[in-house]
Amino acid sequence: MFVPGLIERKRDGGALTPGEWRDLMKEYAAGRIPDYQISALLMASFLRGLSREESAALLDGMLASGGRLDFGDLGKPVIDKHSTGGVGDKVSLVLAPLVAACGVAVPMMSGRGLGHTGGTLDKLESIPGFRTGLSLAETRAQIQQIGCAMIGQTPEVAPVDKKLYALRDVTATVECIPLIAASIMSKKLAEGLTGLVLDVKLGSGAFITEEERSQELAETMIRLGEDRGCPTVALLTAMDRPLGRACGNALEAEEAIMSLRGEGPEDLHDVTIALGVEMLALAGEKDRARAKARLEDAIASGKAAEKFEQIIEAQGGNPAAVEDPALLPQASEVEVYYARAAGTILEVQPRPIGRAVVQMGGGRQKVEDVVDPTVGFVITARPGQQVHISEPLASIFAKDRAGIELARRALDDAIRIGDGHAAPLPLVAARVSAKGMETLG
Amino acid sequence: MFVPGLIERKRDGGALTPGEWRDLMKEYAAGRIPDYQISALLMASFLRGLSREESAALLDGMLASGGRLDFGDLGKPVIDKHSTGGVGDKVSLVLAPLVAACGVAVPMMSGRGLGHTGGTLDKLESIPGFRTGLSLAETRAQIQQIGCAMIGQTPEVAPVDKKLYALRDVTATVECIPLIAASIMSKKLAEGLTGLVLDVKLGSGAFITEEERSQELAETMIRLGEDRGCPTVALLTAMDRPLGRACGNALEAEEAIMSLRGEGPEDLHDVTIALGVEMLALAGEKDRARAKARLEDAIASGKAAEKFEQIIEAQGGNPAAVEDPALLPQASEVEVYYARAAGTILEVQPRPIGRAVVQMGGGRQKVEDVVDPTVGFVITARPGQQVHISEPLASIFAKDRAGIELARRALDDAIRIGDGHAAPLPLVAARVSAKGMETLG
Repeated sequence: MFVPGLIERKRDGGALTPGEWRDLMKEYAAGRIPDYQISALLMASFLRGLSREESAALLDGMLASGGRLDFGDLGKPVIDKHSTGGVGDKVSLVLAPLVAACGVAVPMMSGRGLGHTGGTLDKLESIPGFRTGLSLAETRAQIQQIGCAMIGQTPEVAPVDKKLYALRDVTATVECIPLIAASIMSKKLAEGLTGLVLDVKLGSGAFITEEERSQELAETMIRLGEDRGCPTVALLTAMDRPLGRACGNALEAEEAIMSLRGEGPEDLHDVTIALGVEMLALAGEKDRARAKARLEDAIASGKAAEKFEQIIEAQGGNPAAVEDPALLPQASEVEVYYARAAGTILEVQPRPIGRAVVQMGGGRQKVEDVVDPTVGFVITARPGQQVHISEPLASIFAKDRAGIELARRALDDAIRIGDGHAAPLPLVAARVSAKGMETLG
Repeated sequence: MFVPGLIERKRDGGALTPGEWRDLMKEYAAGRIPDYQISALLMASFLRGLSREESAALLDGMLASGGRLDFGDLGKPVIDKHSTGGVGDKVSLVLAPLVAACGVAVPMMSGRGLGHTGGTLDKLESIPGFRTGLSLAETRAQIQQIGCAMIGQTPEVAPVDKKLYALRDVTATVECIPLIAASIMSKKLAEGLTGLVLDVKLGSGAFITEEERSQELAETMIRLGEDRGCPTVALLTAMDRPLGRACGNALEAEEAIMSLRGEGPEDLHDVTIALGVEMLALAGEKDRARAKARLEDAIASGKAAEKFEQIIEAQGGNPAAVEDPALLPQASEVEVYYARAAGTILEVQPRPIGRAVVQMGGGRQKVEDVVDPTVGFVITARPGQQVHISEPLASIFAKDRAGIELARRALDDAIRIGDGHAAPLPLVAARVSAKGMETLG
């Protein structure tokens, strides 16, 4: 394989064959192609695009580089959900136990915080003792036993995706739909799923902020999944404001627990149920109203919360945190943030909030940073709400005064109060499947 | 400096500031930026282009990475010539001694064979004992003594260009005018020149085969030189057929010696004189007819050949080769190639010839290959010539029968005989200076 010739072809707008993409991934995984050739190829791919066939071949090459779970003998549907990431997005913590409580196997493989967004693993690890680093064998055993595991990407799964992702991160080749789609799907398809639901975020807090491109990303991932025998459906959901009220690891874990007990914020509940309905539908539930009723019942009956306790216990955490969220780590400084003006809340922008959580110590600025689980926000202000001056809009949780000040400035920046109307995106704007897009919001 | 942010800006069609380009080169030269980030930036630059200011800043950064010659105390003009490379292009071997014999200092820094083209260093080293690896200090001393040195790129000159060039070669980012121009000029301006003449090749045997792009390359290099106080002029010359008759290292050295003695082929002589006139003009000779007469006289009087003897002697070679070219290494197999048909010679394509020389052992297919100086061609067939069947068109010089056969196939491929008219490019098609382009041919 003459790699400069392949780079040249992509550079000039041509396509590589499926065999060439697969060989490239194989040789790169084996360390026989240097990073500098792959980064040039990634930049050429970013600027020239990849055809549908090329994305598929790239994905197959990535999948072939690692191990895969196989639940063929489990005798029940195996469904997961993936979110493209946002601020306050703790849906996975609610949805995995909830859907597992309805009898579906959920091998939920998640990531860490990235950029301005939080990560499910960091939120789970705010529960004292919770261990996310299970092997594929441990994951398999736990799913056979209790129907759900909530884990990080193991070294066995799509190892070449890890190498590629790290390289893309430092060579400005992240925001490229075919590369994003292949990366996500290489991890998800390795889970041996019988169905996958995608939560593709829309709006200023999403990684891809243009609506058409979000739709294109959803369609690309759906094609990749369907072509490999994994029925895939996407919901496009709002990320022009944080989801729920809590932003920050332990605060979000607490809100997720409240939601599992039926006491969480409405938007978080509604998005979780909408995604849950899709998961149950993929699991064979033909009647969507019945799917919704089963999910609501799992919450009301306490079965969903109980399933989360089982998961926490199986993964080394303290399950009592579900009964008593005060067992979660608590911030040393707490202050209320008040409205600086009267009027309508026009916007609660997610990015300044997400960035502030990272800067307060709740996320990583370097790979080796240790995350402080206690810091963050609980924001009660919602777009469209009328507020008086000095009305409480949020609580700030920080480790010191500097954190409080930083958070205040972030809220000043994020919450826009004025005259006129707020125009938030519909919470669940559209549903995309192999059959096309259906507007919902 | 946040490198991914710079790559992202270039990726999205923006420009980096001069300071950013200079810092990038400085940090890359120091090994503090990894190759994979630079290769992504090079690919983005290839596809998005560099502005005039960006090329200039890139060049300045490359120049700053290394040492420079300074001939300020020499009291005479210091002029060099650079060719963009072709097949049979042995002009440097004739021109450097010739112009030096006219009283101009010529610090000629050249390269090795690249792709289908030969390299001046390989041709010089076919002269027994000739050493091209002089340090800057040795070069300076030799120029003070005899007015000319013919050397390779020393490790002291633009070291970051060497790193960049090696990286571009394996990442399909070679054929990019701003990168080519900055690379060439970083080496040439390090020579401390008071003037530079560029020989930009046109036609199928050139690296850049489109005429407008050759002109763009010439203009880019001229701007870079002029802006840095080095008056620069370019001639656009024909490379739709080999230059002269000889192709191959020792064969070309021999032809260069013949040309220095006034016994070489006409096209080689004419291109050499045209470039020499430009060099003398840059050195202060106002009268172009007089410049030409001085060059012709240096040949006729034997001074040019004598200067070459001095250079060879100073650099450890056997100067007797100038009197007796039979002292150059000789091929073991020699055969004549005859016309396979009668008609007009429509084309003598340089690329098949250049590639055959490499494959016969006269160039490198891998960096570590040792070059066989003896192999190659002497092609007497010229475009436009009428030939009979079985008329001798060329001599083949090879190390074995396989080489002879390979060379025969290359000549079958390269020499097109038929009806109709040949339409070779004018030998010297145009002259480009800071004032614009002037068509000559």
